[in-house]
Amino acid sequence: MNNFDFYSPTEFVFGRDTQKKTGKLISNLGAKNILLVYGGHSAEKSGLIDEIKNSLTEEGISFHILKGIKPNPTDDRVYEGIDIAKKNAVDFILAVGGGSVIDTAKAIAMGAVTDIDFWKFYIREAVPESALPIGVVLTIPAAGSEGSAATVITKIDGLRKISYSTNLIRPKFAILNPLLTITLPWFQTACGIVDMLCHIFERYFSNTPAPLVNSYSEAIMTSIIDRAMTLRINPEDYDARADIMWAGTLAHNGLCGVGKEEDWATHRIEHEVSAFYDVTHGAGLACIAPAWMTFVAKRNPDMLWRFSIDVMGVNPEGLSTEEIIEKGINALKEFYHGLGLTTSLRELVGKEPDIDGMVKSLEKNMGSTLGAYVPLSMEDCKEIYRLAL
Amino acid sequence: MNNFDFYSPTEFVFGRDTQKKTGKLISNLGAKNILLVYGGHSAEKSGLIDEIKNSLTEEGISFHILKGIKPNPTDDRVYEGIDIAKKNAVDFILAVGGGSVIDTAKAIAMGAVTDIDFWKFYIREAVPESALPIGVVLTIPAAGSEGSAATVITKIDGLRKISYSTNLIRPKFAILNPLLTITLPWFQTACGIVDMLCHIFERYFSNTPAPLVNSYSEAIMTSIIDRAMTLRINPEDYDARADIMWAGTLAHNGLCGVGKEEDWATHRIEHEVSAFYDVTHGAGLACIAPAWMTFVAKRNPDMLWRFSIDVMGVNPEGLSTEEIIEKGINALKEFYHGLGLTTSLRELVGKEPDIDGMVKSLEKNMGSTLGAYVPLSMEDCKEIYRLAL
Repeated sequence: MNNFDFYSPTEFVFGRDTQKKTGKLISNLGAKNILLVYGGHSAEKSGLIDEIKNSLTEEGISFHILKGIKPNPTDDRVYEGIDIAKKNAVDFILAVGGGSVIDTAKAIAMGAVTDIDFWKFYIREAVPESALPIGVVLTIPAAGSEGSAATVITKIDGLRKISYSTNLIRPKFAILNPLLTITLPWFQTACGIVDMLCHIFERYFSNTPAPLVNSYSEAIMTSIIDRAMTLRINPEDYDARADIMWAGTLAHNGLCGVGKEEDWATHRIEHEVSAFYDVTHGAGLACIAPAWMTFVAKRNPDMLWRFSIDVMGVNPEGLSTEEIIEKGINALKEFYHGLGLTTSLRELVGKEPDIDGMVKSLEKNMGSTLGAYVPLSMEDCKEIYRLAL
Repeated sequence: MNNFDFYSPTEFVFGRDTQKKTGKLISNLGAKNILLVYGGHSAEKSGLIDEIKNSLTEEGISFHILKGIKPNPTDDRVYEGIDIAKKNAVDFILAVGGGSVIDTAKAIAMGAVTDIDFWKFYIREAVPESALPIGVVLTIPAAGSEGSAATVITKIDGLRKISYSTNLIRPKFAILNPLLTITLPWFQTACGIVDMLCHIFERYFSNTPAPLVNSYSEAIMTSIIDRAMTLRINPEDYDARADIMWAGTLAHNGLCGVGKEEDWATHRIEHEVSAFYDVTHGAGLACIAPAWMTFVAKRNPDMLWRFSIDVMGVNPEGLSTEEIIEKGINALKEFYHGLGLTTSLRELVGKEPDIDGMVKSLEKNMGSTLGAYVPLSMEDCKEIYRLAL
């Protein structure tokens, strides 16, 4: 096991009606004048936003609003949020939504306390020294941003989708009410499940020996798959929603990566897809993850073999390593298909994707090699896009 | 899944040489004048205390010392620590040791900032409003106190061993260097393993359905058993020491209990044993846990059945539920015996234990019923002590 630092200070407030505690939680942190960031109409229509506004008002907390944050969130909305935050001297940012809303809130939190252009943090030209405190009411279990140090923003000009991580932006609290996720369109539920699984893949597929961490990572992955199948039959199953929601947080708060060298090539290869074609991140991952596995298995089969047996349930009896892995990857694809998702990039974007363009952009954003389980050249990435077609 | 609040703000700094960061970590928290609490000669002899003192001095941190904390830590040392802390206006408490040292530090942390007698917190006659910040350098993976909100102290007068929990005393940081545990006497390693397993038992044996949490709890339990067997053969195996150390933290930071009704009867029944006979807590648990399992299985077999198959590896084919559970409990006993521990209370304390006296004290400390998986009367507890003989 490698040395590591594990720090997950977020208070997770989990269960029915917990959104009613929003005002009180913010008030306990001493904030009085906040920026409320959220997405689209659904949060308004469901009454959630009103409920949260009431909870703020009850505690005497005033609020400013930035709404209409879209998937694959962009820098323009971040600048808008920073502007509101600075003009009104807000002391806290509350994100109500999924990963896109939370990631936007995190970028604003860093940008609102400095004169440095926030984008410089993402392109590693500057390092933030502080950030406004952030709270979250999660409505889409997927990105794990509610418990992570990470944020991903796309710069519209040039379509650069880049992630940045710092403990400064770990949320102070995250309210997780599984009931809020029951009304999600199935497609979003499915994409969330793919995303959280992939957050574990990025840590699980590693060359660092890690019996304990691998064992509980496998337990979380098999639980996600099992509970997803329960939800596919009954999307209103509260306990399955709860397990999926909690698994989404554990998949990305760092627990599954402690002491291991992480990979992240799949995410980075996918980021180009969602930046180029504005597809949902999880839908892109359903195409890229199996293609990545197929590619790296030839060079480094060990963890793919273990994954196929222990997570995908392949019976290894009488099979060669190659056959076991092939069956494992096929089982994963079938699971994605069962969720109603395609594993074909061509089908996903509805046309012949611009592989050369994506590889070029990938190199610009990430340099000439990617990943750790198997280090990938840009030529390798091109092959992975092809395998995903 | 029940509603829950999961808050584990401790920064875990894990790996080789991490104790060298002690001074820096304290300095980052703004402390300058601390109380250093530790146990016996081993920490001095190994050079660890000198190394830590140097690390403090390098950062210009002055320190006062409370040393010689013994297993089953007592109130007299807490009062002594509170006295030193108050007289010298210390602003931080550093615990270097295992659960006893950390629990003492936690009690001092609460007592040093108030005029209320700290014992009143433990007997629920007062509630602490604040506490000095605490840091930990862990040398014995067992109690999980480095990442928990709990502390257990024994009042010498009357032999009352009582636990108390509050987020106020969660350590700010915990340094976990597996190398520091390699020189532990085997008996302490073994008792630690029993203790951490039991921290998961107390949460795992529950009537709340929890597929995800049960699944990763089982993964952690099987890993503990597996890595313990590796260590039994080679106590110097760094990676196995690392897994045991991290598992000890996860077993008790709350992760394995989220959304579940917890039990804790086994711990409470054992606390009387260690209070009466001053035996190591883990050694007492090795006697009590299998006896508790045998007793509750008759009334509520479900989770015992699952445990026997999924954790203890019993092949259920052709066996009745009773037989499966019997095999499971026997396998656990054999595991304890393999660690070199007895599962006989009589053997442990070296004489006929005073069961009536312990039950009387249990009732005085805990009231007339105990536990949740199967609520136990004092008559039931008496039977469990008998089964443990």
